[in-house]
Amino acid sequence: MITQDDKFHDECGVFGIFDHPEAAKMAYLGLYALQHRGQESAGIAITDGEKIVCERGMGQVADIFRKDRLDSLRGHCAIGHVRYSTAGGSQLKNAQPIYVECHRGEIAIGHNGNLVNAPIIRSELEKEGTIFTTTSDTEVVLHMVAKSRQSRFVDALVDALAVLKGAYSFVLLTKDMLIGARDPWGFRPLCIGKLGGSFILASETCALDLIDADYVRDVKPGELVIISEKGLESVMPFPQQRQHSCIFELVYFSRPDSNVFQRNVYSSRYNMGRQLAREAPVEADIVVPVPDSGLVAALGYSAESGIPIGFGLIRNHYVGRTFIEPKKSIRHFGVKVKLNPVRSILHGKRVVLIDDSIVRGNTSQKIVKMVRSAGASEVHFRISCPPTIGSCYYGIDTPTEEELIASYKTVPEIAEFIGVSSLQYLSLEGLLTATEDPEGSIFCTSCYTKDYPVPMPKESFEQLKLFHKAAEEQEEREKRELVVARN
Amino acid sequence: MITQDDKFHDECGVFGIFDHPEAAKMAYLGLYALQHRGQESAGIAITDGEKIVCERGMGQVADIFRKDRLDSLRGHCAIGHVRYSTAGGSQLKNAQPIYVECHRGEIAIGHNGNLVNAPIIRSELEKEGTIFTTTSDTEVVLHMVAKSRQSRFVDALVDALAVLKGAYSFVLLTKDMLIGARDPWGFRPLCIGKLGGSFILASETCALDLIDADYVRDVKPGELVIISEKGLESVMPFPQQRQHSCIFELVYFSRPDSNVFQRNVYSSRYNMGRQLAREAPVEADIVVPVPDSGLVAALGYSAESGIPIGFGLIRNHYVGRTFIEPKKSIRHFGVKVKLNPVRSILHGKRVVLIDDSIVRGNTSQKIVKMVRSAGASEVHFRISCPPTIGSCYYGIDTPTEEELIASYKTVPEIAEFIGVSSLQYLSLEGLLTATEDPEGSIFCTSCYTKDYPVPMPKESFEQLKLFHKAAEEQEEREKRELVVARN
Amino acid sequence: MITQDDKFHDECGVFGIFDHPEAAKMAYLGLYALQHRGQESAGIAITDGEKIVCERGMGQVADIFRKDRLDSLRGHCAIGHVRYSTAGGSQLKNAQPIYVECHRGEIAIGHNGNLVNAPIIRSELEKEGTIFTTTSDTEVVLHMVAKSRQSRFVDALVDALAVLKGAYSFVLLTKDMLIGARDPWGFRPLCIGKLGGSFILASETCALDLIDADYVRDVKPGELVIISEKGLESVMPFPQQRQHSCIFELVYFSRPDSNVFQRNVYSSRYNMGRQLAREAPVEADIVVPVPDSGLVAALGYSAESGIPIGFGLIRNHYVGRTFIEPKKSIRHFGVKVKLNPVRSILHGKRVVLIDDSIVRGNTSQKIVKMVRSAGASEVHFRISCPPTIGSCYYGIDTPTEEELIASYKTVPEIAEFIGVSSLQYLSLEGLLTATEDPEGSIFCTSCYTKDYPVPMPKESFEQLKLFHKAAEEQEEREKRELVVARN
Amino acid sequence: MITQDDKFHDECGVFGIFDHPEAAKMAYLGLYALQHRGQESAGIAITDGEKIVCERGMGQVADIFRKDRLDSLRGHCAIGHVRYSTAGGSQLKNAQPIYVECHRGEIAIGHNGNLVNAPIIRSELEKEGTIFTTTSDTEVVLHMVAKSRQSRFVDALVDALAVLKGAYSFVLLTKDMLIGARDPWGFRPLCIGKLGGSFILASETCALDLIDADYVRDVKPGELVIISEKGLESVMPFPQQRQHSCIFELVYFSRPDSNVFQRNVYSSRYNMGRQLAREAPVEADIVVPVPDSGLVAALGYSAESGIPIGFGLIRNHYVGRTFIEPKKSIRHFGVKVKLNPVRSILHGKRVVLIDDSIVRGNTSQKIVKMVRSAGASEVHFRISCPPTIGSCYYGIDTPTEEELIASYKTVPEIAEFIGVSSLQYLSLEGLLTATEDPEGSIFCTSCYTKDYPVPMPKESFEQLKLFHKAAEEQEEREKRELVVARN
Repeated sequence: MITQDDKFHDECGVFGIFDHPEAAKMAYLGLYALQHRGQESAGIAITDGEKIVCERGMGQVADIFRKDRLDSLRGHCAIGHVRYSTAGGSQLKNAQPIYVECHRGEIAIGHNGNLVNAPIIRSELEKEGTIFTTTSDTEVVLHMVAKSRQSRFVDALVDALAVLKGAYSFVLLTKDMLIGARDPWGFRPLCIGKLGGSFILASETCALDLIDADYVRDVKPGELVIISEKGLESVMPFPQQRQHSCIFELVYFSRPDSNVFQRNVYSSRYNMGRQLAREAPVEADIVVPVPDSGLVAALGYSAESGIPIGFGLIRNHYVGRTFIEPKKSIRHFGVKVKLNPVRSILHGKRVVLIDDSIVRGNTSQKIVKMVRSAGASEVHFRISCPPTIGSCYYGIDTPTEEELIASYKTVPEIAEFIGVSSLQYLSLEGLLTATEDPEGSIFCTSCYTKDYPVPMPKESFEQLKLFHKAAEEQEEREKRELVVARN
Repeated sequence: MITQDDKFHDECGVFGIFDHPEAAKMAYLGLYALQHRGQESAGIAITDGEKIVCERGMGQVADIFRKDRLDSLRGHCAIGHVRYSTAGGSQLKNAQPIYVECHRGEIAIGHNGNLVNAPIIRSELEKEGTIFTTTSDTEVVLHMVAKSRQSRFVDALVDALAVLKGAYSFVLLTKDMLIGARDPWGFRPLCIGKLGGSFILASETCALDLIDADYVRDVKPGELVIISEKGLESVMPFPQQRQHSCIFELVYFSRPDSNVFQRNVYSSRYNMGRQLAREAPVEADIVVPVPDSGLVAALGYSAESGIPIGFGLIRNHYVGRTFIEPKKSIRHFGVKVKLNPVRSILHGKRVVLIDDSIVRGNTSQKIVKMVRSAGASEVHFRISCPPTIGSCYYGIDTPTEEELIASYKTVPEIAEFIGVSSLQYLSLEGLLTATEDPEGSIFCTSCYTKDYPVPMPKESFEQLKLFHKAAEEQEEREKRELVVARN
Repeated sequence: MITQDDKFHDECGVFGIFDHPEAAKMAYLGLYALQHRGQESAGIAITDGEKIVCERGMGQVADIFRKDRLDSLRGHCAIGHVRYSTAGGSQLKNAQPIYVECHRGEIAIGHNGNLVNAPIIRSELEKEGTIFTTTSDTEVVLHMVAKSRQSRFVDALVDALAVLKGAYSFVLLTKDMLIGARDPWGFRPLCIGKLGGSFILASETCALDLIDADYVRDVKPGELVIISEKGLESVMPFPQQRQHSCIFELVYFSRPDSNVFQRNVYSSRYNMGRQLAREAPVEADIVVPVPDSGLVAALGYSAESGIPIGFGLIRNHYVGRTFIEPKKSIRHFGVKVKLNPVRSILHGKRVVLIDDSIVRGNTSQKIVKMVRSAGASEVHFRISCPPTIGSCYYGIDTPTEEELIASYKTVPEIAEFIGVSSLQYLSLEGLLTATEDPEGSIFCTSCYTKDYPVPMPKESFEQLKLFHKAAEEQEEREKRELVVARN
Repeated sequence: MITQDDKFHDECGVFGIFDHPEAAKMAYLGLYALQHRGQESAGIAITDGEKIVCERGMGQVADIFRKDRLDSLRGHCAIGHVRYSTAGGSQLKNAQPIYVECHRGEIAIGHNGNLVNAPIIRSELEKEGTIFTTTSDTEVVLHMVAKSRQSRFVDALVDALAVLKGAYSFVLLTKDMLIGARDPWGFRPLCIGKLGGSFILASETCALDLIDADYVRDVKPGELVIISEKGLESVMPFPQQRQHSCIFELVYFSRPDSNVFQRNVYSSRYNMGRQLAREAPVEADIVVPVPDSGLVAALGYSAESGIPIGFGLIRNHYVGRTFIEPKKSIRHFGVKVKLNPVRSILHGKRVVLIDDSIVRGNTSQKIVKMVRSAGASEVHFRISCPPTIGSCYYGIDTPTEEELIASYKTVPEIAEFIGVSSLQYLSLEGLLTATEDPEGSIFCTSCYTKDYPVPMPKESFEQLKLFHKAAEEQEEREKRELVVARN
């Protein structure tokens, strides 16, 4: 990617289906609907009751699973996984589902989330002579399951999860079971659906919609659902915790047509926009969303403020993975291949620009310049959530804290940096109101507060730093290669 | 494609650049910006003043022209072309630019439009012993140029164009010239831009925007612009005609951030929406656009009517070229892989659904069903142009007249067929008002009136029928293969 | 190719089949058997009696025609073509069969040979306003056919061929005919086979063998065979000529298991080896063939001389199209990736090295160095044909005369250049004896004598020079790119 | 592969290089030279002293490692591996080198051979909670190394190898060491080379030849060579065993230009042919090798018998991975795409046909039929080693014993089955004489004697049976798919 978009990113989407004659195709469609949660790699593991076959590849679902390959995946139970390209780990070996054999038989697992104490446990396991074939924290789970003294598979899994801290929504496949698990804090979403007699697990309800499945309920925080020939069994083996579901799923990650955490994403964003208009009004001529992240909030802002909405920035629908940049750089090239301003909408106007967040600030800066050079007389930037000052350790790909512009600049300083007439963020209270959690008892808001519900051990920080270093090196390398490519 | 979208389609986009050190990369970016005008094939022809090299491929620009291939295209003048997959002709041999050698040297040409008398002339040329290597009408032009008795290249081109009737916006490349030509009726757009000292030709201004070029002016109807070392020379060799620019460019084809025919596309569509609200008001709770074709008009309708806008249909951004459909069909599958309804927006609401057109009616029917099954209490369908009752012979891929639902059903009948509470179209007067042509003296509106400015000869109809037959056969074949593929 | 092998090369192989339910697969297998005649591009044109479909691609037959693509080629009559990469023309547009439409309907043609007066006729046709889409001389034939005043297709083809001079073995396909044609001199081979009721045309009999077809007879020099529903009709429309079949087909091009020109290739080569032993005996310990070109002649030499044969040079069977060469060059790398000496066979031995020819001399030089560094005490080089002093203008890719080492060095000088203890060539008389043409009345031997049966017009020389210049430039460019690639 | 060749197959080739500026390219070339030892998958692991990167792919070396990919492999020490497609295991997950992380750091390993007690140890490890990600026995080694209590890496490796029984030639890479290891019986070859100051390990000397490296010596049976900055250290930690090097390396597997087990392969095969002529003479007109397996032995037979050699079977050099077979089968199709008889050589002749072995007998039968139908009056089949009656458990892919024709038929019965005039095998004594081991003290000959030097535990047999079952199922499936593909 020559153009890094300046967003937080969900790391993964998961899907599972039990007892369906076209399990592979359903997994394929489920992943296709969840594609926005990860475009780097995708995989499907399937069982016919005899053995598990697991196929993974780099790229998007529809590119990896052509007809031939999909047809070769025979079976009636399957899990699937899409993965976002987190820095430093863009290799096939880190694609999921992960498949292993052990004395409990064949297991495949797909993981959305991040286990904060995985590096410590991994280090201990390594000391005992355990070998690892991926850099993924998910592999730790499988070792724990294999090593557990419990005789029942599910008990072994509970044993393993009891030790692991952090965020996880798992789908796990054996020859005769599909298991869904969600951490006690409920960080990442996972819902249960039903299509005829087949149970389904999915990160978001939009995956159910595509295959005509009905939404049953969410997997509860701390719940394991074991789906087998006997039906769905629910286990709640862990001490209850205050729920901490990721509010950013509502702010940006999930698709607007999904429901997550029992809230409709579209409505939540619309409410954020309305609330933002109440908290941060401005005299202006037009409300312009940054597509597509600011789209729904902009509608809410427009409705509440009475200022008409206008699509002053048009998104190119054919954005591919790579562009070849000319040697002599074009102004705002990275932003321009994605967005183009509509001069007739912006010229001479006082613009309220709406986006969901400012991360590092550089992309926002370019967009604002583009809007100004299209003739906007004023640009008032409104953000539909509070300033992001903390990194996430629960399954979201965020820059290090030092890179987050709001961690080292005040709001006026940010406004100056990105060159706007005014800048305002939605308040945390406003955000919680918009997401129907006025008490703040359901959502994790640690990226706004640095108040982390599950602490990150020091060792994990070290590993994170290494990852970030590797990521930076890779970026540097790509930049250098880009320079070469430009010549 | 297993899912045929029910739209009229532009057949092509063209681009040209003269005297730029990175001509190939500029052509690549220009085509990338024009990608919405054709995704089936793309090509670039380039000259270094010594020889012309022409590379074409099936697919999208960014997939065809990887770095290596683009780097091999050395030269300072180039033309490019993107092509829509018209039925029956989806083969590499029909990709453009077309390249030939003749006694006038090497020539490459890219064509947007359709020459109505090409089949007659082709038939005559064939009788004289001329051979053809494509099924494209564009090839006729080159034969005429080669056979002309004129000694100057431009005179030969004028000779050829004088005989040809119909719609064309050409870009033509020789070793030392870039020529742009637009038919006397001005059916298809073509504009002139400038980047430093380099002249540019492009179907839409959005191609200029991406490469930071300035818009100079449109090529005039009937004008040839000859760009060479001596600069830009303009020739107007043909008797003047009443202008007939394709109004559908404003209704649907062109990108909203483009200007075509000296009008801004976004503003035109917004005005269509406003006018539609005036002409066809309704008591309702929410205005919902069919994305993305109804987006801008819906804004206008909402603004004028005061009914709030809501994105009740969410578009999947990862729509690929192929999906693998399950054996047991999913309801509305073809529409569902592209769109998903947002129940919270639609449930219990009286919805005004806005789209740009209804062609065959089947897709509209499915969308309406989806909206209803998401709980809408009423669905009022509003279309931002008049009923399309006539096929286009001027470079737009349309079904035959018999397939156009409005040609054989009244508006109430259509309403019944697609299952809406009410259906209203924008009037022709309203459309002309919205596009700033109240006298109706600039635009071609023949798809609404069947009043064709350049008649289609009988022979061409015959050929068209053959094409449609071939297209139908191909569709049948694909359907059969799909059935096989489902098993 | 980073390693240019120093050989003359056949430019093409052709195949045709009439009225077979699996015509495409048969053409595929036929081309597969003829693959040694051309590895740059391949193509198949097929008809179902209604229309002709033509598919071509760069590379080898089995890579271009995967199952899907082959299955899409439906019909019962087909022609196929494989093409060697002649310098300067390595582009898809020059791949064959060439397909055109004209007033005579659809035509596809595959050509093995070279028309010496094509440039003159092309130039005349261009003056009359004809356009060309390839740089191939074959296209001229099609224009001539299209322009002929004759009403019958075959008469038009005879008209065209009457004007064209040079070497050709054509296969030509219309909707209802398969035509084979061979020039009056019989330069290139073409035989007729039969498989059940289906007629077959092929460059060599090995193509018949693979599909279990029976050899019927050769197409005669100057004969046209018209295969249609009515069976096979033979026409001999041209004045008879003294036959001049290419003797190099027997020396090197054709597969040893083929019969061409009514001679078995293996036996001819074996006889060349025996004759060589008689003409050029030497005291030695072992006869070593340069694989695979010298293999059969070496057997003959060994048998006649009584010196045992040994495979002192082993060929790598996995030679791909590209190798990545290390930055720091390896001695004899280009030869070494193909051949490795067997020290135990060569060490301390007086070696008779047998090959079919020395073209530029550089490869021979490297091979001899390799043999010497493996310990051979003497290397006596024996060549199974006379010194090649003249370029070929009849369908063989040869260097220009100036590059042929035998055109500017005496045999002793060549011996010195390549570093052998002794060097001897087979005499022309010996070669003719070995090929059963002691009178020299059947074969073209112009590459040994410069006595050209069909003169090359001056204009064609000019064009040839241009091609060679382009080829050299391309080689230079590839070398430069290789240098870059090494860094 | 639609055509299974009826041969024993080596399972792998390995290569290693320490401290070379172009380690990746050298590994690439080394693998390219060893390509005949495995064409299913290939891989390279490389270290720059900081980390190990490991890239693997399905297919041949030159297809997997294009320039870009090879350039991305930066470092100065590397190992490489090519793998043969053993039944039931044709998946990327089984490609090597295998890469893991453990408390000893990163390790990559490439393995040629088979550990007979791996299934038992794996089963024990699984019981202890160890997970496996491949079905390869090689993974067991890494777990043992990781679990060893020894502090030094090499001691841990010795610990692991002490427990493992069977055949192995390993190359193993850490960040600062290249280790080569060969089992105490010396089943599989492994030699040491030197290129300037860089040490090299390779399965065969032909890999040294290609990169201009000098042969130093073989790794001794039971030896570990540890190559590091300190140079090459040799360790012989295991009790000495009677050597049992695989005689089939000389009979068929290794390249004739290689030396393995301190014997030249070409000379050994030539001696087998001579010995065979002494043991099994026959009155005949011509000696014909089955290419390429019988080539060198045929030379020996011809030399000793005085019967001239003739290449009556010509091999197609363009045999690709797949062929598309016609629906209506062609006689001997599977053999014919590879070999074509030369009628002029065979017709009316008494033929001595030479091959290295008969495995199942079906391919030999087809070849004999082909030779007979080309007109041979008698076909005397001579095999350059004894009848193969036992499966191999030491790293060779062989059918189960029941499938070996010689295990259930007498020589006369085999002769009848394959349809020859006479059949004779080389005696075991003759083979040992030809390979300079008249005492039979160096080679493993268990496939001829079923006298296994390292017994195969029962559990391993079970696993082997499962593999064979899986392989058969896969073959069945492929056959079925082929049938489908034919329609």
